[in-house]
Amino acid sequence: MWSFGPDGADGDRSQKDLLGGKGANLAEMCRLGLPVPPGFTLSTAVCTHWYAHGRKLPPGLPAEVESALERVERTVGRRFGDAADPLLVSVRSGSRASMPGMMDTVLNLGLNARTVEGLARASGNPRFAWDAYRRFVAMYSDVVLGLKSHGERALDPFRAELDRAKAERGVKLDTDLELDDLRALVTRYLALVEARTGRPFPSDPREQLWGAISAVFRSWNNERAIAYRAMHHIPAAWGTACSVVAMVFGNLGPDSGTGVAFTRDPATGAKRFTGEVLMNAQGEDVVAGLRTPDPIETLATRSPQAWQELVAIQARLESHYRDMQDIEFTIERGRLWVLQCRSGKRTGTAAVRIAVELVKERVIDQREALLRVEPASLDQLLQPVFEPAAVEAARRAGRRLTKGLNAGPGAASGPIAFTPSRAIELAKRGVRAVLTRVETSPDDILGMQAAAGILTARGGMTSHAALVARQMGRVCVAGAGELEIDYGAGTLAVQGRTLREGDWISVDGSTGEVYAGELATRSSDVCAVLLEGAKPQKGSIWPHFKTLLGWADRHRTLGVRANADQPDQGRAAVAFGAEGIGLCRTEHMFFGEGKIELVREMILAESAEERVRALKKLLPLQRADFAGLFRALSPRPVTIRSLDPPLHEFLPHDEAAVAAVAKHLGLATERVRDKAEALREQNPMLGLRGCRLGILYPEITIMQARAIFEAACDVAAESGRKPRVEIMIPLVGTRAELDLQAEVVRATAAEVCAERRTKIPYLVGTMIELPRAALLAGDIARTAEFFSFGTNDLTQTTFGISRDDGGRFLPEYVERGIHADDPFSTLDRDGVGRLMRIAVAEGRAARRGLKLGICGEHGGDPRSIALCHELGLDYVSCSPFRVPLARLAAAQAALGG
Amino acid sequence: MWSFGPDGADGDRSQKDLLGGKGANLAEMCRLGLPVPPGFTLSTAVCTHWYAHGRKLPPGLPAEVESALERVERTVGRRFGDAADPLLVSVRSGSRASMPGMMDTVLNLGLNARTVEGLARASGNPRFAWDAYRRFVAMYSDVVLGLKSHGERALDPFRAELDRAKAERGVKLDTDLELDDLRALVTRYLALVEARTGRPFPSDPREQLWGAISAVFRSWNNERAIAYRAMHHIPAAWGTACSVVAMVFGNLGPDSGTGVAFTRDPATGAKRFTGEVLMNAQGEDVVAGLRTPDPIETLATRSPQAWQELVAIQARLESHYRDMQDIEFTIERGRLWVLQCRSGKRTGTAAVRIAVELVKERVIDQREALLRVEPASLDQLLQPVFEPAAVEAARRAGRRLTKGLNAGPGAASGPIAFTPSRAIELAKRGVRAVLTRVETSPDDILGMQAAAGILTARGGMTSHAALVARQMGRVCVAGAGELEIDYGAGTLAVQGRTLREGDWISVDGSTGEVYAGELATRSSDVCAVLLEGAKPQKGSIWPHFKTLLGWADRHRTLGVRANADQPDQGRAAVAFGAEGIGLCRTEHMFFGEGKIELVREMILAESAEERVRALKKLLPLQRADFAGLFRALSPRPVTIRSLDPPLHEFLPHDEAAVAAVAKHLGLATERVRDKAEALREQNPMLGLRGCRLGILYPEITIMQARAIFEAACDVAAESGRKPRVEIMIPLVGTRAELDLQAEVVRATAAEVCAERRTKIPYLVGTMIELPRAALLAGDIARTAEFFSFGTNDLTQTTFGISRDDGGRFLPEYVERGIHADDPFSTLDRDGVGRLMRIAVAEGRAARRGLKLGICGEHGGDPRSIALCHELGLDYVSCSPFRVPLARLAAAQAALGG
Repeated sequence: MWSFGPDGADGDRSQKDLLGGKGANLAEMCRLGLPVPPGFTLSTAVCTHWYAHGRKLPPGLPAEVESALERVERTVGRRFGDAADPLLVSVRSGSRASMPGMMDTVLNLGLNARTVEGLARASGNPRFAWDAYRRFVAMYSDVVLGLKSHGERALDPFRAELDRAKAERGVKLDTDLELDDLRALVTRYLALVEARTGRPFPSDPREQLWGAISAVFRSWNNERAIAYRAMHHIPAAWGTACSVVAMVFGNLGPDSGTGVAFTRDPATGAKRFTGEVLMNAQGEDVVAGLRTPDPIETLATRSPQAWQELVAIQARLESHYRDMQDIEFTIERGRLWVLQCRSGKRTGTAAVRIAVELVKERVIDQREALLRVEPASLDQLLQPVFEPAAVEAARRAGRRLTKGLNAGPGAASGPIAFTPSRAIELAKRGVRAVLTRVETSPDDILGMQAAAGILTARGGMTSHAALVARQMGRVCVAGAGELEIDYGAGTLAVQGRTLREGDWISVDGSTGEVYAGELATRSSDVCAVLLEGAKPQKGSIWPHFKTLLGWADRHRTLGVRANADQPDQGRAAVAFGAEGIGLCRTEHMFFGEGKIELVREMILAESAEERVRALKKLLPLQRADFAGLFRALSPRPVTIRSLDPPLHEFLPHDEAAVAAVAKHLGLATERVRDKAEALREQNPMLGLRGCRLGILYPEITIMQARAIFEAACDVAAESGRKPRVEIMIPLVGTRAELDLQAEVVRATAAEVCAERRTKIPYLVGTMIELPRAALLAGDIARTAEFFSFGTNDLTQTTFGISRDDGGRFLPEYVERGIHADDPFSTLDRDGVGRLMRIAVAEGRAARRGLKLGICGEHGGDPRSIALCHELGLDYVSCSPFRVPLARLAAAQAALGG
Repeated sequence: MWSFGPDGADGDRSQKDLLGGKGANLAEMCRLGLPVPPGFTLSTAVCTHWYAHGRKLPPGLPAEVESALERVERTVGRRFGDAADPLLVSVRSGSRASMPGMMDTVLNLGLNARTVEGLARASGNPRFAWDAYRRFVAMYSDVVLGLKSHGERALDPFRAELDRAKAERGVKLDTDLELDDLRALVTRYLALVEARTGRPFPSDPREQLWGAISAVFRSWNNERAIAYRAMHHIPAAWGTACSVVAMVFGNLGPDSGTGVAFTRDPATGAKRFTGEVLMNAQGEDVVAGLRTPDPIETLATRSPQAWQELVAIQARLESHYRDMQDIEFTIERGRLWVLQCRSGKRTGTAAVRIAVELVKERVIDQREALLRVEPASLDQLLQPVFEPAAVEAARRAGRRLTKGLNAGPGAASGPIAFTPSRAIELAKRGVRAVLTRVETSPDDILGMQAAAGILTARGGMTSHAALVARQMGRVCVAGAGELEIDYGAGTLAVQGRTLREGDWISVDGSTGEVYAGELATRSSDVCAVLLEGAKPQKGSIWPHFKTLLGWADRHRTLGVRANADQPDQGRAAVAFGAEGIGLCRTEHMFFGEGKIELVREMILAESAEERVRALKKLLPLQRADFAGLFRALSPRPVTIRSLDPPLHEFLPHDEAAVAAVAKHLGLATERVRDKAEALREQNPMLGLRGCRLGILYPEITIMQARAIFEAACDVAAESGRKPRVEIMIPLVGTRAELDLQAEVVRATAAEVCAERRTKIPYLVGTMIELPRAALLAGDIARTAEFFSFGTNDLTQTTFGISRDDGGRFLPEYVERGIHADDPFSTLDRDGVGRLMRIAVAEGRAARRGLKLGICGEHGGDPRSIALCHELGLDYVSCSPFRVPLARLAAAQAALGG
């Protein structure tokens, strides 16, 4: 048992694994002498014991809890269950990693028909005592007795009773209910519990306490918590700690209050103390967003002493923890109590700014700054914002609906979804909704994940919606109080307008503005500077971004390239810091203006001669494509993959398109239809594609090689800089395939270089994207000058799962923990990773200095990048917009993060 | 240089690797003192040097050849190139493994305008001399100068000239041409060569000799030889030897002749000296089938001394080589010369009979007998023969067309194909043709492979068609001289009837009979005894078959099981010697009468309840299926795989079938169509199938497990023998999948066994058919009690090749040597085999005594079986009809064969 109180604490901040974040920090703050209510913590070891022993607590525990409770009683000067002046406690969950709102907490525990009278007398405020009792019964029945159906607020029977009571009294706010109303309400609540559970509500405070402790442990495995852990890769084995803390009350009158504060702005990262306070309220009122709180500065006049103390404490906590802190506090009749502190969740922008500024302030070093920013959060800095002209036009057209709190920066347009399930359903169809709720609860988390943006009518900057949205990188406008949402009718009413579910809406999470309809967007500040050569705006995050990524480049050892096949993509890649192109998919070029027809002519050819004729026409167009890419990249290396997809992907399949193509090419409709039919495959993923095409039709590879080398000679001649060409043969399963294609490439290169009297440096390598290629890597490396792991296909074949079809079962697999992660998002270390390890070791053994990279989509996933670093690859390649993320992730991998 | 002659030889029979089969046996026969014309052999090392050094011969070679040639000259008493009495030689290919007719030979070498006159004078037979010259020019021009286009006889310019000469003279046979005709023909030939090559025909005998030697080496890599090697797994690195042998002549008059003899009957294996002879002819005439030869016995009267000598020699050679010998001989003016001996090619029936009888004769031991029979050739003993009643009916209906030689036993019906390409084309569409040719040549080999049967108008029992057909196990009727085949018209005329290409024809390779139309077949002798309980016929191969397989069982260590899912298949499996069922595909049972409708009802269910209702109806039917199988197999183990294929395979796809199913089930057509559409997948091979189905719909696995255990209890109750049940979960990629399915199976088993108060012994295991399963085998084996390698899917995923679609490129891959074998026919040792090796080692390390088997189609392929033995598997499982093959192959593997 780990006690804490004004005379110090058993634990400290280093014991998060055992005490959970909350318990460890409460202990630490006691050690610092801060005003923390006394309490004690049951460690995560108790939780894992509870799960391992059929949900039974360790035998010695009750005695330990009793003695810790006695210590609290002594400190506070009240006794638990005492009818005259009862000690009340809160029972709080708290795991190693912060999981805000995912698990359960019970407040005001210790109340019953007798102690409530004692509390009324002792506090001199019977209304407060009965309100506390009402809250306790509702919360305990929900958390411990499982009486609330999660999901729809309407299904909460206690809220229904409360709403009925308010309606009967004709009042609007909970606080308008009077003592007698509350007494009556408690009676109704207790009757409801007995009716529903068949047993009276537990009145023994000790029975209540043990019930709450078990419920906290149980909540580790509730649906929300499991979903959150899956999303954040938190192991189920960790378990949660459980802290029992003496209650202090923010709802004892106008000189009481409760709030949340941040030592720096969690949205922008600006160095200013910020936060919110709600007077005469309990903490749950702030988090649940039931009432919209006031800015923290208002405390300066309302409770000047507490304000001064809080300002001092926040400064002390930030410098102690050397990071931006999120602080929960309560003011009880003018006296400040700190209930929790933790490193604050923040937006990507804030994370970058804070990390860089803490280094400038000499609080942390570069290494720590790099490890503090979640690579994926950089994405937020690259997301578009609304076009100012479009905003202006919408405003003039009267499409501005309202303004809420700018809780999650960015711009999002999408159809309104009033329920999480609707948002998920739309996302499955590729449409990102704006999830529009009165307020969000932890049950909404999967819907929030699926949505492009979140809009709530209630709740502040520290409401559930705001916290979760910022962490997920979702655009969020919270507490837009003018909105009237009617779930039953499926409508949103504001300023006399009514929008229905499915109507488009736009939310600006940076300003809090909400507009009807869709709004055009423009590049973010960072993108404007990098891609459009714009000057950074005043207060822009750009300098911080640049600084942080500069540090990343200094620390990482893994190279970062981009996947690109158009000159503009190539330029973006370079702007984002790519050191070359890791994958140019030549087939993407085939879909360009005037090209697809020639490709079809080539496919429909009935002889090698006809095919060669069509390829000849395609040659200058491909050459121009390659030249564009070389100009954008030279002298950085460009890896070009020869034609990969099955040919039927280039042919039309429905009747109308077939007829159009036939007409365009002057062929019989039947010929086009028959060819498309003949090329159709049972399993195209495993069919005639990749190097198999180039082996059956070497003329295609010859044309592509010629286009590449002619383009390289052209660019060398015009710029004096020779492009560095790397030609990559796809879907090789055996060395002979690579030999045949490499021979064709080398012969063509020699021919072109002789014609142009230019030497172009080039390599010929292969994708490793089939299990057999990985297993035969030693042999293949005798021909291949580089390997690039094509982990998309390698994952498909290693698992035997088609990415196109896996959607039928993979989500359920991940949800049920059959796979820890979606293997198409994060590299599978045990299977695919083992094949990669074999290929790396045997490839390098066969060819010293074999260049190794990865060009599957895993190249843009931080944990996969860490695995690539560990495997000793030379570079990762990802989409241009993920290059910054990859640079940071590579640095973290090098730093052992 | 390896000389041989009447005074002995440098080499002997043990040196086949160096001297080729022909060279080694010529040397050996000299050592035995047999009448062999003198000569010498250039070893395979010369050939490999020639290929390794840009087709240049080793520097010292000319001097060595000169001195060996001198030795021959001294022995024969004639000089090479001597104008008065020239020595002529043959230049013959001969590789380590017999490749009959695949490579080139040149006869009569040394002739030119001067030596031909010498030969005429010395032989006293100018017509013979000029005929020899004519043959030499044609053959040399073909083989060395490359003047003949292979494939179509019509494209042979020399044959065209010859046919023209015969037409001008109004004669039919080559032998009817007279001296002056031949002189004129030679002049025309020489002019033709000069016109086509731009150079005169080489007249210098030494230039001729070196040209022929190079041509022999070159022929190692001609198309036919490459195809043959691929078919017989002969390494390209071996190379061919080249023997230069003094000519002896079978065409010097009626007391001369040439022939081929076998020490035992190559068709039946009966112990009788058999063969054919053609008087006044050269060897090529026999092999090419230009004239139909006489039975060997006719020599007894025509050339009694040579006959007696031959009978003695054949007996001596068989006992010397301890195997049936194929002997080539020539009689020159009454004197016998042996030109070659080798182990004779034989049918499967003959191979079994000879091997068993040689053991009985104490010539070889069991071990050697087992190694002498090609496992695949056992297939011939199981192939059906024509139904006697059908033969009788066809005869009465006048459908009997003619009778030829019974050159390759068995019965085949199919459409007539006049060209190899047509036969290949039909085979690709799944139709096995009867390849019908005037005569076959080595160029026809791929067409013969593709055909069900071969029918030729010309050629004897030792013609190319007969030799190759027997070896391939193809049904063959050769030399049906009444047939008039007109390739141009695409017709076959016989006895006033005309059949066209595509008309069906039936050939009985055991009797030589040919019928129009299709004929019903019945079981072979072995199958009649084993499967129908028939008494073996007199002279049946059955006792030999039984003996040989008994020996195989005594020597093998690998178990053999069968893949079966119906009781009759199970009984056949047991009859063929299977020790259990290695794979029961439950989905095959779903297609039975009355079942498919219930399966569809289950698939179309819209809720778990509806699904369970349909499954309930299916349960008794599945139970009956399993009971039947258990009855057939008990107490042998039965491995049952839970549902594997994607559900859409059970639904109709075209409109009419959809409507019919909807009507039958009383559902809206749209519902059936929509469901079929919804279940369609991009890559069904990598989609929702295997255990993924059982995990999403556990009720299916529960129904199947219930049916299995209820059936097992039923059979245990009725027979007193408990079935041994092995339940196999397909497509597992990670242990959690197996855990979930095993839990369902075990729970159901416990339930059923408790209900029935019966204990059924059972195992739960998994297929290893995904690369990831092999890589994670150590973990999976913690749950799996056995592994069965599903090498079909494992090959598909390891190579990334769909078996359904690979047909577009795999044949070309194999032909071009990109893959040594079709990986779906023979296990890929380096890729798939390596994964298996990992799984075996890590699986067994995790679970001592883990049972390991293979149930992919490789389980019936001899070389794959050898690999399974090497990997230490416990058993292979294959189709029932392949069980005998697998038993023999397993014995050979154990014997290190």
